[in-house]
Amino acid sequence: KVDPKDEDLLNLNFRHNVNGEDLVIAVAQDYETSEVLMVAFMNKEAIIKTLETGKAHYWSTSRGKPWFKGESSGHIQEVKEIFTDCDKDAVLLKVKQTGAACHEGYYSCFFREISHDNSNDVNIKEYKLKIVKDKVFEPEKVYGEK
Amino acid sequence: KVDPKDEDLLNLNFRHNVNGEDLVIAVAQDYETSEVLMVAFMNKEAIIKTLETGKAHYWSTSRGKPWFKGESSGHIQEVKEIFTDCDKDAVLLKVKQTGAACHEGYYSCFFREISHDNSNDVNIKEYKLKIVKDKVFEPEKVYGEK
Repeated sequence: KVDPKDEDLLNLNFRHNVNGEDLVIAVAQDYETSEVLMVAFMNKEAIIKTLETGKAHYWSTSRGKPWFKGESSGHIQEVKEIFTDCDKDAVLLKVKQTGAACHEGYYSCFFREISHDNSNDVNIKEYKLKIVKDKVFEPEKVYGEK
Repeated sequence: KVDPKDEDLLNLNFRHNVNGEDLVIAVAQDYETSEVLMVAFMNKEAIIKTLETGKAHYWSTSRGKPWFKGESSGHIQEVKEIFTDCDKDAVLLKVKQTGAACHEGYYSCFFREISHDNSNDVNIKEYKLKIVKDKVFEPEKVYGEK
């Protein structure tokens, strides 16, 4: 079993403290298309669970508890590779996404573009958030009505 | 298709407070290869500067000040597209990277893989951080000797 005190791997820098939890930023990317799917956080336990199970586990900062991605929706992420960055305070997961990453029904959470219609006017007020992707599922059918 | 409640660009959720600064997470990705280059933070000013100039500006949490990426190294990021996620607390920048994104000389900051040699043993202690990319420049030549 796992010794969480083992620092060899966990030389990661969990420097992002959110409500008392020490976290690294985690970016999930489709392992085939390289589309960025989502950004979340992981604590040490989430890293260990992810490595042990091969499925992405995060720390939910909104709920303040461990989050096994896809536990309720079935939209799990099979982790193919994990990288960390120069500061070791972020990880990049290359995953095989079942269903869709976003709870709003989009394959990627990054379905809104910050864009403007008038290419001659880069006034900040011209920029809007626009939905530029299509849903792959209806959230009510997966999570039930709110 | 603009969602009326999304019309205000600065409706972004700068919910990540680091040393008193309200920030969104920013992921920079190569606009051609989709390689993830780095993860950083942006405050409202950095978003505006980025949109106004077309070059990536961040907030340096280590230095506690605005950070025009590439200002000292010349390794700027020309921003082709910007997306935000479902929670609007993260942005994804698709960029044309000059030189390399990482100050350690690698094209991407994610040059270390969390991997293990023995595919039959997924014991957590078998995992190591391994450098799996090649440098594209020598940091001393760009930033000078430390």
